[in-house]
Amino acid sequence: MSRVYNFSAGPAVLPVPVLEEVAANLVDYHGQGMSLLEMSHRGAIFTGIIEETRALLRELLAVPETHEILFLQGGGHLQFSMVPLNLLGAAAEATYIVNGTWSKKAAAEAQKFCHVNVITPAAHASLPDKDDIHVPNDAAYLYYCMNETVDGLEFNYVPPAPSCVPLVADISSNFLSRSVDFSRHALVFAGAQKNFGPAGLTVVILRKDLLGLADEACPTMLNYEVHVQGKSMYNTPPTFPIWVANLVCKWIKAEGGVEEMDRRARERSRLVYEAIDRSEGFYTSAIAPAHRSRMNVVFHLAEEALTDLFIREAEKVNLFNLKGHRSVGGLRASLYNAMPVEGARDLRNFMFEFVRRHG
Amino acid sequence: MSRVYNFSAGPAVLPVPVLEEVAANLVDYHGQGMSLLEMSHRGAIFTGIIEETRALLRELLAVPETHEILFLQGGGHLQFSMVPLNLLGAAAEATYIVNGTWSKKAAAEAQKFCHVNVITPAAHASLPDKDDIHVPNDAAYLYYCMNETVDGLEFNYVPPAPSCVPLVADISSNFLSRSVDFSRHALVFAGAQKNFGPAGLTVVILRKDLLGLADEACPTMLNYEVHVQGKSMYNTPPTFPIWVANLVCKWIKAEGGVEEMDRRARERSRLVYEAIDRSEGFYTSAIAPAHRSRMNVVFHLAEEALTDLFIREAEKVNLFNLKGHRSVGGLRASLYNAMPVEGARDLRNFMFEFVRRHG
Repeated sequence: MSRVYNFSAGPAVLPVPVLEEVAANLVDYHGQGMSLLEMSHRGAIFTGIIEETRALLRELLAVPETHEILFLQGGGHLQFSMVPLNLLGAAAEATYIVNGTWSKKAAAEAQKFCHVNVITPAAHASLPDKDDIHVPNDAAYLYYCMNETVDGLEFNYVPPAPSCVPLVADISSNFLSRSVDFSRHALVFAGAQKNFGPAGLTVVILRKDLLGLADEACPTMLNYEVHVQGKSMYNTPPTFPIWVANLVCKWIKAEGGVEEMDRRARERSRLVYEAIDRSEGFYTSAIAPAHRSRMNVVFHLAEEALTDLFIREAEKVNLFNLKGHRSVGGLRASLYNAMPVEGARDLRNFMFEFVRRHG
Repeated sequence: MSRVYNFSAGPAVLPVPVLEEVAANLVDYHGQGMSLLEMSHRGAIFTGIIEETRALLRELLAVPETHEILFLQGGGHLQFSMVPLNLLGAAAEATYIVNGTWSKKAAAEAQKFCHVNVITPAAHASLPDKDDIHVPNDAAYLYYCMNETVDGLEFNYVPPAPSCVPLVADISSNFLSRSVDFSRHALVFAGAQKNFGPAGLTVVILRKDLLGLADEACPTMLNYEVHVQGKSMYNTPPTFPIWVANLVCKWIKAEGGVEEMDRRARERSRLVYEAIDRSEGFYTSAIAPAHRSRMNVVFHLAEEALTDLFIREAEKVNLFNLKGHRSVGGLRASLYNAMPVEGARDLRNFMFEFVRRHG
């Protein structure tokens, strides 16, 4: 196989050894005479897989026993509803930091259910100043998106909240690429299709004391407590993505864990950001270095008309899916855990070469 | 590979040629240099797959242009909420036929949102008499489960409803095994993990005039209209299960279509029901022949103590997952589309042999 470097924002690159193990055991799961796709989720093999995956996540992210780990469906979008439906309780409002596409969507959805206080950064395409984050004591929770996939922004600090206000984070696109401080985060969630596995699986890690607040009218499938009690098997879970996620966890562990994923993420993104910063304005990034995402490098060509040519020429040297999100245009290189450092280096070299040819 | 006959109720047996095609193209999707698991859902390849799958379903089930076809997540359980949240409109009540585990669950969930009129059969483990189905003209809809997977009951008639009352059916466990009359069904839904593909995908087929009734407070992801407008891509769809479902549709078409699936289902189930009926009471089925499911044959041993021995001895001759649902005990042979007729014949022969040895 001639493998390409795939900079897709998600679904996204997966580790080759994981794909190879899935392929080798797809028709006949380790000599069982049937595929994992065909197995009851209540059988010993799948329950072993889901329990092991939970234990691996607990180990990789040092999730304390105060927190439950859930495997759900519906992606980040369903979490935008589930968070307020489960956490509001008797409170009438919640506070959202809105600094990009995904936090904006989450805040808009929450407005169906409560009053939303919005904190925005002073400048476009940035993080709010830490000192500008003021959260009322009676807010149901403080919400933020740790990495804005479309905009290329990543928090480099934990937003301060009063100790009585639970902190909620969308970590979909930097999940398992850095540590999470669970002494400060009450709930985090992540769609799998960036760093964890195929689309169709969502991980939620939440503090147990948040359970039991959902209203009676909350749809049963949207109640975290139901899924905690059912150990993520209240209904049939997405068994295949959980199997792949299990193998991804093992791959991360074998490669050196989350700390090593973080180190590689810094290295990959540094290589690409340097190509932007050294281009003397040929490539532009609106984002201050301290706010830049290690996962999604968003940039533009000063001469926008060259964008399509950039994409076409990149494909000729095996670099795919560099087109920016349709809402912001330009270019985006998503550099998730499974992207080899060599992929980032090849992209950097191509970027230099493209300047030489067209600068 | 030594393949077993897998009578699991779901996730369940899939066609071997489908599994083999998935395995062969898992790491490198038809020479693209990446897996389908890694591809953007907005790219040409996946949008081609989802559109083709929709067209194949429309063809296989003769879905008229009055109806939309959606690919969602969350299984039947999420539909239990979505149906009332989307169809109630200004109505205060809905009517549910409750004659088994799944219709009972659906009715219980609907009670969160409206008053529920329940129609039950006169006798346990049966269908209601057609003449006993009375639906008020102001009911938001009439709901039934066409095949009760746990109880082994399948409707052999379409429940009568006033023409102004939409008819809704859970067809999870007999999807694509028989034709559906869409001139009478306003909405049908099916979890994929019986006849259609891996867990994590739900198909909803609904009449367009039902859209637009959801309340403003309906979570966005639970609003059918949102998914119709987004062509099932409002958010990232479960791309892998949709790929497998695409191949399953092609397999059904190549094998002769839904009519042929129905013929095989009748043949398989007839073989097993005969083994029950000819056993002179060694095996028992509480269900009247006219109400018996072609998909899930539920039966007991008169001498319940032999059940575990039956299961163990069946495994020795390659027949797996025959244990009944934990709520009803006994035995259950699920005979979905991908179960070869030979599997049903082997089960029948084993059942006769088991009577000879232990009867």
